[in-house]
Amino acid sequence: MSIPQLKTLERAYGFDEVAIVPGDVTINPDQTNINFTLGNFTFSLPILAAAMDAVVDPAFAILYSKFGGLSVLNLEGVQTRYERPEEILAQIIQADDNKVTHFLQKVYSEPIKDNLIGEHIQTIKKAGAICAVSVTPANTKRLSPIAKEAGMDILVVQSTVTTARHISKSYRGLIFSELRQTLSLPIIVGNCVTYTAALELMRTGIDGILVGVGPGAACTTREVLGIGVPQVTATMDCAAARATYFKETGKYIAIITDGGIRTGSDLCKAFASGADAVMLGSVFARAREAPGKGYHWGMSHPHPTLPRGTRIKVGKITPLEQILFGPTSVTDGTENFVGALHTAMGVCGTPNIKDMHKVKMVIAPTIKTEGKYFQAIQCTL
Amino acid sequence: MSIPQLKTLERAYGFDEVAIVPGDVTINPDQTNINFTLGNFTFSLPILAAAMDAVVDPAFAILYSKFGGLSVLNLEGVQTRYERPEEILAQIIQADDNKVTHFLQKVYSEPIKDNLIGEHIQTIKKAGAICAVSVTPANTKRLSPIAKEAGMDILVVQSTVTTARHISKSYRGLIFSELRQTLSLPIIVGNCVTYTAALELMRTGIDGILVGVGPGAACTTREVLGIGVPQVTATMDCAAARATYFKETGKYIAIITDGGIRTGSDLCKAFASGADAVMLGSVFARAREAPGKGYHWGMSHPHPTLPRGTRIKVGKITPLEQILFGPTSVTDGTENFVGALHTAMGVCGTPNIKDMHKVKMVIAPTIKTEGKYFQAIQCTL
Amino acid sequence: MSIPQLKTLERAYGFDEVAIVPGDVTINPDQTNINFTLGNFTFSLPILAAAMDAVVDPAFAILYSKFGGLSVLNLEGVQTRYERPEEILAQIIQADDNKVTHFLQKVYSEPIKDNLIGEHIQTIKKAGAICAVSVTPANTKRLSPIAKEAGMDILVVQSTVTTARHISKSYRGLIFSELRQTLSLPIIVGNCVTYTAALELMRTGIDGILVGVGPGAACTTREVLGIGVPQVTATMDCAAARATYFKETGKYIAIITDGGIRTGSDLCKAFASGADAVMLGSVFARAREAPGKGYHWGMSHPHPTLPRGTRIKVGKITPLEQILFGPTSVTDGTENFVGALHTAMGVCGTPNIKDMHKVKMVIAPTIKTEGKYFQAIQCTL
Amino acid sequence: MSIPQLKTLERAYGFDEVAIVPGDVTINPDQTNINFTLGNFTFSLPILAAAMDAVVDPAFAILYSKFGGLSVLNLEGVQTRYERPEEILAQIIQADDNKVTHFLQKVYSEPIKDNLIGEHIQTIKKAGAICAVSVTPANTKRLSPIAKEAGMDILVVQSTVTTARHISKSYRGLIFSELRQTLSLPIIVGNCVTYTAALELMRTGIDGILVGVGPGAACTTREVLGIGVPQVTATMDCAAARATYFKETGKYIAIITDGGIRTGSDLCKAFASGADAVMLGSVFARAREAPGKGYHWGMSHPHPTLPRGTRIKVGKITPLEQILFGPTSVTDGTENFVGALHTAMGVCGTPNIKDMHKVKMVIAPTIKTEGKYFQAIQCTL
Repeated sequence: MSIPQLKTLERAYGFDEVAIVPGDVTINPDQTNINFTLGNFTFSLPILAAAMDAVVDPAFAILYSKFGGLSVLNLEGVQTRYERPEEILAQIIQADDNKVTHFLQKVYSEPIKDNLIGEHIQTIKKAGAICAVSVTPANTKRLSPIAKEAGMDILVVQSTVTTARHISKSYRGLIFSELRQTLSLPIIVGNCVTYTAALELMRTGIDGILVGVGPGAACTTREVLGIGVPQVTATMDCAAARATYFKETGKYIAIITDGGIRTGSDLCKAFASGADAVMLGSVFARAREAPGKGYHWGMSHPHPTLPRGTRIKVGKITPLEQILFGPTSVTDGTENFVGALHTAMGVCGTPNIKDMHKVKMVIAPTIKTEGKYFQAIQCTL
Repeated sequence: MSIPQLKTLERAYGFDEVAIVPGDVTINPDQTNINFTLGNFTFSLPILAAAMDAVVDPAFAILYSKFGGLSVLNLEGVQTRYERPEEILAQIIQADDNKVTHFLQKVYSEPIKDNLIGEHIQTIKKAGAICAVSVTPANTKRLSPIAKEAGMDILVVQSTVTTARHISKSYRGLIFSELRQTLSLPIIVGNCVTYTAALELMRTGIDGILVGVGPGAACTTREVLGIGVPQVTATMDCAAARATYFKETGKYIAIITDGGIRTGSDLCKAFASGADAVMLGSVFARAREAPGKGYHWGMSHPHPTLPRGTRIKVGKITPLEQILFGPTSVTDGTENFVGALHTAMGVCGTPNIKDMHKVKMVIAPTIKTEGKYFQAIQCTL
Repeated sequence: MSIPQLKTLERAYGFDEVAIVPGDVTINPDQTNINFTLGNFTFSLPILAAAMDAVVDPAFAILYSKFGGLSVLNLEGVQTRYERPEEILAQIIQADDNKVTHFLQKVYSEPIKDNLIGEHIQTIKKAGAICAVSVTPANTKRLSPIAKEAGMDILVVQSTVTTARHISKSYRGLIFSELRQTLSLPIIVGNCVTYTAALELMRTGIDGILVGVGPGAACTTREVLGIGVPQVTATMDCAAARATYFKETGKYIAIITDGGIRTGSDLCKAFASGADAVMLGSVFARAREAPGKGYHWGMSHPHPTLPRGTRIKVGKITPLEQILFGPTSVTDGTENFVGALHTAMGVCGTPNIKDMHKVKMVIAPTIKTEGKYFQAIQCTL
Repeated sequence: MSIPQLKTLERAYGFDEVAIVPGDVTINPDQTNINFTLGNFTFSLPILAAAMDAVVDPAFAILYSKFGGLSVLNLEGVQTRYERPEEILAQIIQADDNKVTHFLQKVYSEPIKDNLIGEHIQTIKKAGAICAVSVTPANTKRLSPIAKEAGMDILVVQSTVTTARHISKSYRGLIFSELRQTLSLPIIVGNCVTYTAALELMRTGIDGILVGVGPGAACTTREVLGIGVPQVTATMDCAAARATYFKETGKYIAIITDGGIRTGSDLCKAFASGADAVMLGSVFARAREAPGKGYHWGMSHPHPTLPRGTRIKVGKITPLEQILFGPTSVTDGTENFVGALHTAMGVCGTPNIKDMHKVKMVIAPTIKTEGKYFQAIQCTL
């Protein structure tokens, strides 16, 4: 007798479970193009700096724009809640491990000051950088006009999970199609992880999708809620939605993989899974120029009753330029992300990111063995 | 040449191997309903406190009922074997690690005192709580009339594995259909883990099923006997039996996932697997108000010749209210279970538990990597 | 383009990767029968003691026969090479870790003394025990007549891998059909792990098969040679050969799972995989009465140029009776193996071993989590 | 609704995930033949010593040829960049852990001296050894005529990934068919890992293929670039290309598995996967006669901006002869590789390497359990 199946469970894969297969043709890395385009903007780096308080402040956004990348400033973080965010940041960094969550809950209960939104955006714009800012869906209607007025170029609407349809008694749901028309500038929405949710969001007229819910194995969203899809599968499914939508409309929506990327390897796999760009948080929190000064914390950490994240030390502090471009003496994939991407594309024979979407990957879990030192040097030439 | 297959091995999944996929619609968590109904009783919490001596005594049962939940008092534990159970509990807690199993074997060889059964049930009832008690199949005929007489509301018949048909020379098997008619009150039976065993039990007329045999990886039933089915698959299969039986009869039997739940994540996955309620043991043993005072032990631990469990320290002691509802500064999913369920249902866009049964899950094993700290804060906003 | 497949890789399973599913009927453990029959001999225990020098000497064989089990005496070990084996055993036990392999290589280069074979067999027979002895294929022709003459009841021909057809220039291969006719007593041959190899051996007329090549994850046959099949799959495949051969001839060949069994759980899974009996080595090396005095070593350990095993401490020393029957205060499955088998058969509702062959198993890998202590007590009642 | 699949992910396997199944016939190990043929050369050992500076210098090449094996001298390593390589080697070995990568980057920026190429090749040839040397594709046109002139027998063209078609603006790609005709000696090219890339390389007329990209779990090519295919699958796929090409042309191309082999087990599995020979690096770096004096480093380690490897200690130093042939008292598969191969072939009943290609393997992951010591001695006889 066969048991009736109420639901089927399909396998989903994360970065640690796959590997990229080299191509049948190879190409010199310096002949590979990694440009990223969003609306009328083109960036020489397909890497966004995440809207997290340990990563992006106006100074970081300006610096990173000089290297060719786009930063997202969080309009609901310490930068817009405090006149002197550096003092608050210092206190977060110095807080005791067992008190930091409680302290963060307090820090993020301070009201957002509208005037600071305008000031920061203007600072970034005056320096000649393209300015992207992020808001949560609940605050989008109130904060986006202020940001638009101040000159923002790109709006990011982001929460743990954002869908085209949200049911709420307390406020009329955000209608992305209306927002897009009102603002007349590129909108990125996230996060989402499935084909159907991505497709519904695309059909509202937005320009980019952030992909990633609980991607890290240690991400506490998975521990607290059990919710999440590993990033390779999530990116592949959202990229499939991009293809479907492109066939329907001829419009190409950017897929931005957000979360779970720790090394050059993860970054390359995100592109091989279909990403047009990636968003990095903890990697950039290691930058000497980042406001976190070697610490990092998730933006759902300070939830008042159900915090889902933890403050961490991010390891060795390194100049941003070296993280991006090397040169490096580090051999674990945590520096020279841009060089790694060019090299991987060379080995795969793919001259641009869209070709990188087509490379083959295999399922090849990382197995740690005790004879690790024997395997450590198998890379020939 | 193909080898004749004498049996096929199907894959079964546990909580650590799956993740819940967010929905295409989201809903405000405060608009989600988590009520649990059994017979004519409706509880505001779909969480039962397990019939274990470190978890439930009459005082705990009364307290938990005020929060909206149902406790099950074990009629074969220290509460009914000793006039002063608190003394025995203190001795269990203080016993040396290498002597505790032997001591427990002795403790649970003391005869059950009928008068204590009546006293405890009346204490619980007088406080206005709904009273559920548990017995093993072998003692059901003797103890259930006493409990009924004293006013119990719900009977739980529980052993490691309970089936509708038990073969024994020494006593006439318990006939659940007769028991149900005699007692005329809701009966929960367990534990079971398969479609066919659950369906046979349902056809005897009982009202709820406890699902779970050896669910924990460290559960010594799996080490000692090799018996067990991981909880996601077990719950899904028993939920399939509920659907079949409902189609046959129109009667809806409660599926209660019992065992293996450590975090909010596990709890949410139990509901996503088809549970109407869950039963928690070790989680509640952490409650400041629980009789175990920070220790916990399995009820098959004291088996005289083949003990299958171990006394453990349960970790940080926390008020019951905070375990259930927060607020919390803990970020690992071990507090605010109710908030986690509401939030997960919001993210899945499911207004009630029966809709939660339909959410998609993926197979996504937890992979621990050394770069763990990088992944620890991937939860965006 | 699809890649031509030169060979397919099928998944094979070991004890740690499966779990037994409880039955739809349960039965009282004291109504389950675990007898094992080989030729005209019937044993009350379906457990053989392995032909290893740390496990079986004549005294152990006699003792174990009183409990109902069968021991196999190694005719090529220290018992037949040395007049005073206890002295050699003491030296093996006391040897330094880094010299023990070299010392064992020397110990086992001493010639076998024919007279000791006769003496030991007669000692065992005089005590009223059934006497089984083991030889390697290369020595079978020389040693088996001596053993037959001395009164052996059962012959075991064992090497790492034994097949019905062996190609050698140096000696005419052993023909099992001739051997069986010459000796006229039950012959067990091993080890093998596949359907076809088992079937070919059965067709030579032998009576039992030892199943297991490199079953343990740490077995150095797998590290040194890469050879091996995990025991659940190996046992299932050889049991399938038994079924095919039974259909062909009506003769029922005993399948004896040898190796990899550490706990009651492993033992129960061997029977659920199709074993008629199991052979235990390291488990019995823990017996107070075993010659190894708390140490154990593989019999391919002393290979002169390619040793494949290691001397180990076997842990807590326990009386043989307690290992077999309990009572025990140990909760990890390492004592009361017989009780565990009866209990598992009760939970599965199987009155005898042949019914136990039919129980369902699922693939359910053991996943170790950090929250282990929470899972440690999930066994209800 | 089914999600459109943009790409499928197939499972790839490494050495730790498979096991070799014993045969239905067995053969005496001394009747197995392990010869390896390349062009007109036949070697009694199917094992190449890798072109790495810690493994092969002229003295090692000469010694190893006496045992029947082929060494590859790296023409772009310290031997051809420095008049006194032993001094540079000593400095590499003594460098601090945190400075060694930087130091290696400097060491390998020294220009290659053409005269040293000639000297080393002549030294090797004068000693009567067959001389193989390696170059990278970019330097092949410049260095191969010098080496040919000096008397090299076999050319190895090797980089992380080499394809028949390389796209570059800066230099006209290397055409292997032209190179093969110009040199008129056997050419081995690598590394590659796929059916199609291998087949394209074969069609250029080369004689052997090195298989392996990032095979080790800890290989930093996988951490830095995410590129790689585990060795069992890579070898099987390239062996399938050999079969296709043989059917097309009647020419048999050697498949040489390069990387990830730590033990006799790994070595035997490479042959069972279809290898005609293997290339060992770290195993030979353990040889007392190797230039690395107990240390080893990858040849892509010194990349100026993106190093992918690390200097390691290789463990116990052992005479080369003992690593190859034993006798050994080591039981973990790290000595007597040749004996292990003969023994495995005996157990599989395969008289030569081509028959070894046909043996069955199963997927049987290595699972480490805490009860490891129990499993350590399961090898019977």
